[in-house]
Parts: sequence; C-alpha cells; structure tokens
Amino acid sequence: MNIHKQISKPTLVINKEQCLKNIEKMAQKAKRNNVIFRPHFKTHYLAEVGEWFKDYGVDAITVSSVTMAEYFYKNEWRDITIAFPVNILEIDGINNLAKDAKINLLVFSRETIDILNSKLRHKAGVFIKVDTGMGRTGITAEDTESIDLLVNEIIKSDKLQFKGFLAHAGHTYNAGSVEAILKIHEDTKRKLIKLKQRYISYDKNIIVSCGDTPSCSLSDDFSGMDEIRPGNFIYYDTQQYTIGSCSIDDIAACVACPVVGKEKARNEVFIYGGAIHLSKDFLASEGGLKHFGLIVLLGDKKWSEPLKNTYMAKISQEHGIIRSSDEYFDKFNVGDLVGVIPVHSCLTANLLREDYVVV
Amino acid sequence: MNIHKQISKPTLVINKEQCLKNIEKMAQKAKRNNVIFRPHFKTHYLAEVGEWFKDYGVDAITVSSVTMAEYFYKNEWRDITIAFPVNILEIDGINNLAKDAKINLLVFSRETIDILNSKLRHKAGVFIKVDTGMGRTGITAEDTESIDLLVNEIIKSDKLQFKGFLAHAGHTYNAGSVEAILKIHEDTKRKLIKLKQRYISYDKNIIVSCGDTPSCSLSDDFSGMDEIRPGNFIYYDTQQYTIGSCSIDDIAACVACPVVGKEKARNEVFIYGGAIHLSKDFLASEGGLKHFGLIVLLGDKKWSEPLKNTYMAKISQEHGIIRSSDEYFDKFNVGDLVGVIPVHSCLTANLLREDYVVV
Repeated sequence: MNIHKQISKPTLVINKEQCLKNIEKMAQKAKRNNVIFRPHFKTHYLAEVGEWFKDYGVDAITVSSVTMAEYFYKNEWRDITIAFPVNILEIDGINNLAKDAKINLLVFSRETIDILNSKLRHKAGVFIKVDTGMGRTGITAEDTESIDLLVNEIIKSDKLQFKGFLAHAGHTYNAGSVEAILKIHEDTKRKLIKLKQRYISYDKNIIVSCGDTPSCSLSDDFSGMDEIRPGNFIYYDTQQYTIGSCSIDDIAACVACPVVGKEKARNEVFIYGGAIHLSKDFLASEGGLKHFGLIVLLGDKKWSEPLKNTYMAKISQEHGIIRSSDEYFDKFNVGDLVGVIPVHSCLTANLLREDYVVV
Repeated sequence: MNIHKQISKPTLVINKEQCLKNIEKMAQKAKRNNVIFRPHFKTHYLAEVGEWFKDYGVDAITVSSVTMAEYFYKNEWRDITIAFPVNILEIDGINNLAKDAKINLLVFSRETIDILNSKLRHKAGVFIKVDTGMGRTGITAEDTESIDLLVNEIIKSDKLQFKGFLAHAGHTYNAGSVEAILKIHEDTKRKLIKLKQRYISYDKNIIVSCGDTPSCSLSDDFSGMDEIRPGNFIYYDTQQYTIGSCSIDDIAACVACPVVGKEKARNEVFIYGGAIHLSKDFLASEGGLKHFGLIVLLGDKKWSEPLKNTYMAKISQEHGIIRSSDEYFDKFNVGDLVGVIPVHSCLTANLLREDYVVV
C-alpha cells in the first residue's frame, strides 16, 4: 500500500508486523510466568486487531465498558472482563452478555453487590477491585475489614461467582523511572498475594489479576500472580516511550496527517490533525515545554525515528502545530503527509476508529 | 422524556429551548448589525441541530473539514465555508462539493493557490485567512506585501473567486477579561476594515468575516464587518462561562453520567464519563486546581446551577472523578445520573455524536 497516495486526512497507521511482535513478546512473558494473558482491548478497540491475538492463544479479554464488551461479543469473544466499576444502569446489557458469555464484573461497594444480587438474571464472575496505591477506584488493599464484608456478600450470592482480586497500578505512569515502576509492581504483587492468601479459604479458585502496561513491559517477574491485563503495549506511544516502557521501535501506531501550511518566522508547520484526532493528552518535551506528540517521516511500512527538536507544540480542534527545528522545516511541504506518534495511543485510537489503515 | 429512565451511559443532553434562544439572540444581533450570519456547525455537528437554524433565516454555514462539509451537504446545505486551511489531499472531495454547492475555501500561501489552480475542476470561493493576533494560521493582517501577492494570484485565476478576508480571533479565549475580549474584537475589526479598504478596488464584492464566540457574544458592534461565524454559542460551556461570554443559564448542553462509586475518605464520586466522552480540556477551578467540568443535578428538561466547590477533578479514559463538597457528597448515589457541564462543548459534542438526546 502506498500510504502517501491513499491517505488524505488524519488516519491511524497501524504497523501489523510490530503489533504482532508486541503481542508475541507479552504472550511469551505470560507463558513463562504461567499467568493468564487477558489483554485489554480498549487500546485498539477494533475487531480486526483483536483477531491477531488469537494466534497467540488468547481467548479471554479485558474491556472497559459494556458497550465495548457488546462489540467484542458480536465479534465472537466469549470470555470478557469488564474492567470498570459496574455501571448498574447498564444491567440489561450485562444480562444479555452474561446469558451466553463468561462475563466478569468489578465491584468495590456493598451497594453495587446488593443491586447486582437483585437485578442479575444470569451468573457472572465478580472481582473485588483493590486500590494498590493509584488512588483512583477500589478498596484499599489493606482495608481487610471492608473486604471481608464484600467477600461475605459475594460468597452467599447465588448469582455472583467470586473470581478474586483485580488491581490496576496506574500510578506506574507517573512513577518517574523504571526503578520506581518496578517498585510499584513489586508492591502491587505483594498486596495481591497477601489478599489471595487471606481469602483462598473462601474459594480455592480465586485469582489475582494485575496488569498495567509499564509493569507488564518492564518486569519479568509475575510470581504469585494469576493473570495480567496489559492493553497499551499493542501500540505503545510517546508516553510509554518517555517513561521507559518501550523502545521507540516498539511503537506500532502513528497518525498520518496532511501538511496544510507553514510559517517560516516561527518555524511552524500546520497540519490537519488536532484534538479530535489525537486527543489533548500532553507530555513535557526535552526542553520542558508541553507537547502533543513526536514527529516522524512516513514510509510505506514504517516510519523514521522521531525528528530531533521537533514536536507537536500546539493543538486545537482540527489544527496541529508542529514546532520544527531548522533542519527539518524545509523538508515539510504543503500536501505532504507527516506522522505523529501520539502521546496516548488509547485515546487516539478511540478517536480514529473509523479512520485507520493496517500496513 | 424521563432522562433518568432512558439514559444508561454518558450522553450529551441538549436543551433545545435554550439552543433556540441562543440562536435567536445571535441571529438578531447579526440582523441588527446587517451582517451575514454564517454559524459554525462544528460545535454541534448534527443534522438535527442544524435544522433549528433554518427558522432564523440561516442558509449558509461554516464547517471545519471537508468531511464535515460532505455531511452537511448530504443534509441539504448548499452554501458552505470550510474554515480550515485547504487540505489539498482532499481535492477530490472539494471538487465533488463544488460541483453543485457554493464552497468557500481558506488560503494563506501561494503554494496552495497554485495547487488549487491546477486541480480545482469547479469554481470555488476563496478567503485569504488573516491572523489578527491569535498567532495560529494565516497571514499577519499587516503583511500587505504577502497579501498583495496572493490577491493578484487569486484575481487572475479562472477557478478561484476572491471572497475577501477571514479572521478567527481565537485569542479572545485567553484574554482574561470581558474588556480584553472586546479590545481584541475592536482590533480585529480595525484590521479587517483596513484590508477591505485596501483591496475593495480589486473586487467590489469582497467581504470581511470574523466571528469567535466570545467576541460575537459580548460585542454589539460589528460595524465594518460583513459576516460573523460563531459556533460555540449554540451550547456554550464552562470555558465560555468562565471567560464571561455567557451566563450559566445560557449553557444548553451537559453530559449525563452514571455514578458508579464513592470514596468517603476523599469526598470523591466516581462516574462513568471520562476523556473519551468529555475530552481532556481543563480549566482552573476557583481554588486554582485544574478541573474538567462543573457538576449539576439533572432534571428532565433543565439542570441545577453548578454545585458549589464540586468539580470534575480528575479524568482518565472512562473514569471521571468528582471532588465533592461535604454538602453534596451524600446526594450522590450509585446508579444516579449526574450532569457535567463540559469545559469545551465542541470537543465533547464531537465525542458524543452517537450518544445524545434532545430534551
């Protein structure tokens, strides 16, 4: 495919070969560690990309909404963990799914368990969501008093099947160093292992599930864990590269954007590619200024290393403004396509679900 | 409609009555000032909402992409300004549109004009995009040397019809006060008038077009202008309210989000409603912390005033975290719907084009 001839507007370019490498590496790591590999499909959210996982033995997935579970259910997936606190307003959708698929739900309050008990029409697995330090949702892993209460409620339910404990150590994203990420991973494992030991007598089949992309990419030790659920690793992105989760070559997706103008006085290149394509997630560049993506030159199958001192400096709804180094400014011409390695590929891929190509 | 019974996931709630008031007010302002009212349709990007404008005499619109122009063309709009620098890679789409619709394009470089001259198959209007101080795209309004060159190229083209000058004074968004916004508006008008005077001898039909929502909402004086193109005013949002463009009652859209959990220790309420629904645009709250939206209690037709000291404090892909005041914390229960007044309604509406209700 000649992407320079076929792409005319902001389009997610997915490098299949690199995706397969990323999947294989993670699948092998899971196998070595004897843990279930239940990848999070929210990053790509595409049936086509989902299929690629099957060759690596994946038959169980993670999603982040009932809508996404329904999408992958329609695409033949039958073992789905909805890794978002149960939204009981979607109980009809959950019941439809649970009728003939294995569905696992996340709970962390008595209220939600009570409502599920009264409204679930089919059996569903439930994980207790524990907070191992991120400080978002879930019961603090040390709060065994509250956990006791929930476990007791789940155990006596005829609808809810106690699956175990699930954590998302999302604080790895802001950890600041590889060492700090690994420390968080060890801490999360320690907390999950402790919980499993405490509650294994309630149900010998309970499992513990972890799996943010930084930890899963950087650690080789999942001892004590039963399942990992990384998602971002399929594409990686500028953020993962910046925090050390991946090399620049591991990144498997970028956004092809048309150049629509230039401004020599400010070394700015204007592209069609803005917040509605890339999202407004940003990072600090080398100089400390915020940026919305790294810039690459596009080949048909792959793309160049990120251009030095060249960033997506500003972004508005449709406009992207590249602040270019002198060296590259003259390389950009109106009508060219340039590549932007997104800051956060999950948000970008979600925005470009209708506009993607596989190369 | 009982939105509390019908909505089960993040949904844009559009208050039609308030939208009509907002349209009427702007249409009357345009009429009083004898300027063309060519609203920007990127904010709503919905055929249904577009229809509401017709009762106020609107038959010419502004959009921000060829794709959006195609959408509204399919919905019977035949006079469309694509207010984004021409993306020449979409020349086929432009040609299809220009075949039997009035299409106006934006240029600010000789390069683009040359390519249009060689590739346009039908006549199209062109505006020269001028930068009146925002510093994004366009030729600096004072740079008459460059403008002379472009005007001469346009005038001698048999395809390009010189329409005049178009500015977007988007720096009003960061102006800091109503006075500062009005000052920018006066400055933009002054610059556009000067350009019109200079180039009117080239074509007596040229017009000058301005129209960011802050200026159009706050000023009553469009003397010298020929056209306004505000877009955001149809819904307004937290940003417009914060900078003084609108009152809280003028806001005509919010996002209904299900409550999925609470955390008493941190006064946090977890909702299903994150970056993929609201976008990651943020503002500073009263206390100076950044926030991703104001929180309201939802009625069936309208919603409450924003709850005091209660904000969307954090946002991730699907999660929204409301930091609630003590007063309101107990009002939120799992399974409730709460309303979020988005920071930037254009981005939010774009994300929820498939998930909206009109009340």
